[in-house]
Amino acid sequence: MPTNHLQDDDRGHIRIAIDDVFSIAIQALLHAGLSSAQAFPMARTITAAERDECFSHGLYRLPGCVETIKSPKFVANAIPVVAEISAAAVRADARYGYSPLAFEKALPLVEQKAKTAGICILAINNCFHCTALWPEIEALTERGLAAIAMTSSHSWVAPAGGTQPTLGTNPFAFGWPRHNERPYVFDFATSMIARGDIALHDMGGKQIPLGWALDVNGNPTTNAAAALSGAMLSFGGHKGTALSTMIELLAGPLIGDMTSSQSKEFGEDTRAAPCHGELIIALDPALLGWGTEAANQSSAEQLLSAFAGQGARLPSRRRYEARERTMKNGVRVPKALYERIQSLLPSGGPM
Amino acid sequence: MPTNHLQDDDRGHIRIAIDDVFSIAIQALLHAGLSSAQAFPMARTITAAERDECFSHGLYRLPGCVETIKSPKFVANAIPVVAEISAAAVRADARYGYSPLAFEKALPLVEQKAKTAGICILAINNCFHCTALWPEIEALTERGLAAIAMTSSHSWVAPAGGTQPTLGTNPFAFGWPRHNERPYVFDFATSMIARGDIALHDMGGKQIPLGWALDVNGNPTTNAAAALSGAMLSFGGHKGTALSTMIELLAGPLIGDMTSSQSKEFGEDTRAAPCHGELIIALDPALLGWGTEAANQSSAEQLLSAFAGQGARLPSRRRYEARERTMKNGVRVPKALYERIQSLLPSGGPM
Repeated sequence: MPTNHLQDDDRGHIRIAIDDVFSIAIQALLHAGLSSAQAFPMARTITAAERDECFSHGLYRLPGCVETIKSPKFVANAIPVVAEISAAAVRADARYGYSPLAFEKALPLVEQKAKTAGICILAINNCFHCTALWPEIEALTERGLAAIAMTSSHSWVAPAGGTQPTLGTNPFAFGWPRHNERPYVFDFATSMIARGDIALHDMGGKQIPLGWALDVNGNPTTNAAAALSGAMLSFGGHKGTALSTMIELLAGPLIGDMTSSQSKEFGEDTRAAPCHGELIIALDPALLGWGTEAANQSSAEQLLSAFAGQGARLPSRRRYEARERTMKNGVRVPKALYERIQSLLPSGGPM
Repeated sequence: MPTNHLQDDDRGHIRIAIDDVFSIAIQALLHAGLSSAQAFPMARTITAAERDECFSHGLYRLPGCVETIKSPKFVANAIPVVAEISAAAVRADARYGYSPLAFEKALPLVEQKAKTAGICILAINNCFHCTALWPEIEALTERGLAAIAMTSSHSWVAPAGGTQPTLGTNPFAFGWPRHNERPYVFDFATSMIARGDIALHDMGGKQIPLGWALDVNGNPTTNAAAALSGAMLSFGGHKGTALSTMIELLAGPLIGDMTSSQSKEFGEDTRAAPCHGELIIALDPALLGWGTEAANQSSAEQLLSAFAGQGARLPSRRRYEARERTMKNGVRVPKALYERIQSLLPSGGPM
């Protein structure tokens, strides 16, 4: 990476252009032994997250990705197998590689089926997963489709009323395509907070708010380390727990894949990313819209525009604002992370 | 209804056998002018709710159902039209009648498609809706299918961070079929609490907890009347708001139907049930399960059994316990409600 793209600022950060984020990611992944077929879609996904200031899934994830590549159950040169199950169902067996390549390979068939049948389900099986769901949702909204995505993770979360880590942090994402506007997209963990956020509190020696987690004895805790060895809590009480349980069942047993508890056991306490299933449902507003697509789009715009001017925010807005900013000015990467990533790159490389 | 089925108890309630709940419901609906094709599935749904002690959707709803039947936009003898959209999509146009008949008419085709394609979407359009979603979910799980259901309602709920009634109370329901066990089913409003609960507080002169609603000026309120004229709040903050927004888009514009705001306008301040769309997605674990159905069922059971013994509760358990009890002993109906319902029955009838 040309050093003139590096600029120190006064708060312990380094500014890096987006193209260079991609260059760092791809070099680190290839150097760790990932096949280039696997590495390119993964590097694009990491870059998209960093670009949108979704830091938890950007360069911050790179050391964990490298660690996953080196774990014994990961297949670094996995070639996903895409199979047509029916007129409205596609399966992508990731063959114990990363999810982004499996998704990319299945996407054309999913689009075609969704536009023929109105709906298509994509089951991604046997994938190691460490990316956000919204990049996949955006790929579908770009094709004019609405989409839902969900995955399980590792069993770190107690069900409402309970005390034992039983459910994953199980993210749920949704996107709606808009004409002349960036899509409406959300992507949230069904735990109160991402596990990475608790880890960051722990690393920084900071307390967590009450309501995020229980300690190993099932008591509410503000100690981040105690939370990590205890159980996280669901967002929204029993309703969030219900949603998370649905995700366990749909992205797991429905499609012949593991629950978060089984995935954790499969992971054998390594620090590799969770290996599990992912479920995507794509929906075509043009086909399902009762022949009134223009009116439907206008109804949707009326709804979404009502959020403005009352203090409410569309969930994707912050990311889109970041995107505009970072495409011009690059991203700010903490020096400590930047230095950690240096150690993942080939020595004598362009950095 | 034979009077020997009526028993006063000492707390202002009357005990009624389940068969008699059905008899009361069907008589009231027919007497209000509803066609028998419409009335039977609606009476079955009301009876199922009362039987499961899901009181807000049981006999309590009957006066509102009767009011809806008399409202000018409701079509009391509507005959739903079921259309095959694709290999995985069915539309049921309720033709401005109630939803249960439209659902029942579409069910065989939905089952057939879900079992052929692995997934089937059912769009119910132009239906007046005042029933819980779980009876429809149960009808699908009885056929071995997993299912998701959602509807919009009327715009009573402010988005997180906002102050204006923009979203509906938008319920979301899910079911998973279990071998040798009653299905896992949940059905929740995406508002903090059902609107009926706030209305009950208002009628009883009771305060509501902070966090349920805002007054008309956008300030948090504990006054139930102020909440009803202000805005309810989402469960789970911005995540609940996101889920509710998804429901608006999927059960509305996606399928050519109204948002909660449009439905409220359509309702013109009458006290009729909301008229809008409903979306159901049915999924076949046998077809999607990667040829390992027994192992998948066992994974699901392992997950669900982990809820026991740690204080957590499966969301459907309370309803199933009520069902066992009321099938034997009947239900307890408040005398005031019982008397109100008398006025809806044909005079000189069996009551």
